[in-house]
Amino acid sequence: MDMLDLIKTRRSIRRFSQEKLDRNFLTELIEAARCAPAFANEQSLEYIVVDEPKVCQEIFETLTWAWHIRPKRKPAPNQRPTAYIVVLIDSGIKKEAVVDASAAIENILLAAWSRGVGSCWLGNLKKEKISQILSIDEKYDINSVIALGKPAEKPVMEDAAADDTKYYLDKDDVLHVPKRPLARILHFNKFGGK
Amino acid sequence: MDMLDLIKTRRSIRRFSQEKLDRNFLTELIEAARCAPAFANEQSLEYIVVDEPKVCQEIFETLTWAWHIRPKRKPAPNQRPTAYIVVLIDSGIKKEAVVDASAAIENILLAAWSRGVGSCWLGNLKKEKISQILSIDEKYDINSVIALGKPAEKPVMEDAAADDTKYYLDKDDVLHVPKRPLARILHFNKFGGK
Repeated sequence: MDMLDLIKTRRSIRRFSQEKLDRNFLTELIEAARCAPAFANEQSLEYIVVDEPKVCQEIFETLTWAWHIRPKRKPAPNQRPTAYIVVLIDSGIKKEAVVDASAAIENILLAAWSRGVGSCWLGNLKKEKISQILSIDEKYDINSVIALGKPAEKPVMEDAAADDTKYYLDKDDVLHVPKRPLARILHFNKFGGK
Repeated sequence: MDMLDLIKTRRSIRRFSQEKLDRNFLTELIEAARCAPAFANEQSLEYIVVDEPKVCQEIFETLTWAWHIRPKRKPAPNQRPTAYIVVLIDSGIKKEAVVDASAAIENILLAAWSRGVGSCWLGNLKKEKISQILSIDEKYDINSVIALGKPAEKPVMEDAAADDTKYYLDKDDVLHVPKRPLARILHFNKFGGK
């Protein structure tokens, strides 16, 4: 698929089929993250890939899903992610690496989607609990968790009416994701320029 | 090109040929940014595309290039970017949107590279000066500037020896970008896990 089409069709996924993801694929996602730009090329990011069912289950309990439609997109037991990537910042290398982490994570989401794998980027985390589960040293900040799995839902993006961008479920349980229209966010050569 | 290959071969570019970029392409890049994930789907990002040569020249004066090898990758007049994207955060919508901005910017860099266009993500900016040049209202935070153009250099990524990741120019004036090896940053199922 063309890169632009991949970018346009990627949506956050919160219902997954239970097909397992293989290690080569998961390693490829970390390779994609590794190739992201890093400010001043200082690299403080590390990644814990979780694919053992027991550990997946423990990580699941530390996550908060889709605030605006709670609890409707907290995945049921037969719809849960089959793997996670926990993104760590080594504070000994760089104190502030949220920008680097976000660029690396976006690479992971797109690389996953290019192989037909869905993802959800989660930032509302029980970090202390995750540290315990995965034996993470305290010098690491837990930046995000990325949930992964083959998609079992098809959210749709649409242009937002006015600036109301709250996502919602329709009567067929399809998630709609309104985005501000291009004309409202794009300027040429000065603010307000056409 | 396959998504993974695109991600792996994209490097920051700081020398550009002077071929102009067309408006449809530049608009496509903003569409790519618009499709990035936004936390809680709250969208505070706007974009000023700069492609008029006179404005490009003014923006160029507000930027700092490649700190570690200054001034060797500050582009000479015949190697400068032919367009810029200035990324704005509307603080009236969301105070903290650095994560959203970084994901959207990564989409722009990859979408550009998928069309053979190079980019450099710049964060060290004379923001007040940019506000004046582009008539930006003070409620907007200027997050980043992305420099764009057809590449006139071919930087290479390589595995870093130990943790020395400083980028450097070799005797042929090729930029080398060392990245921490995969084995040092990837863990399975717990910190340090194989």
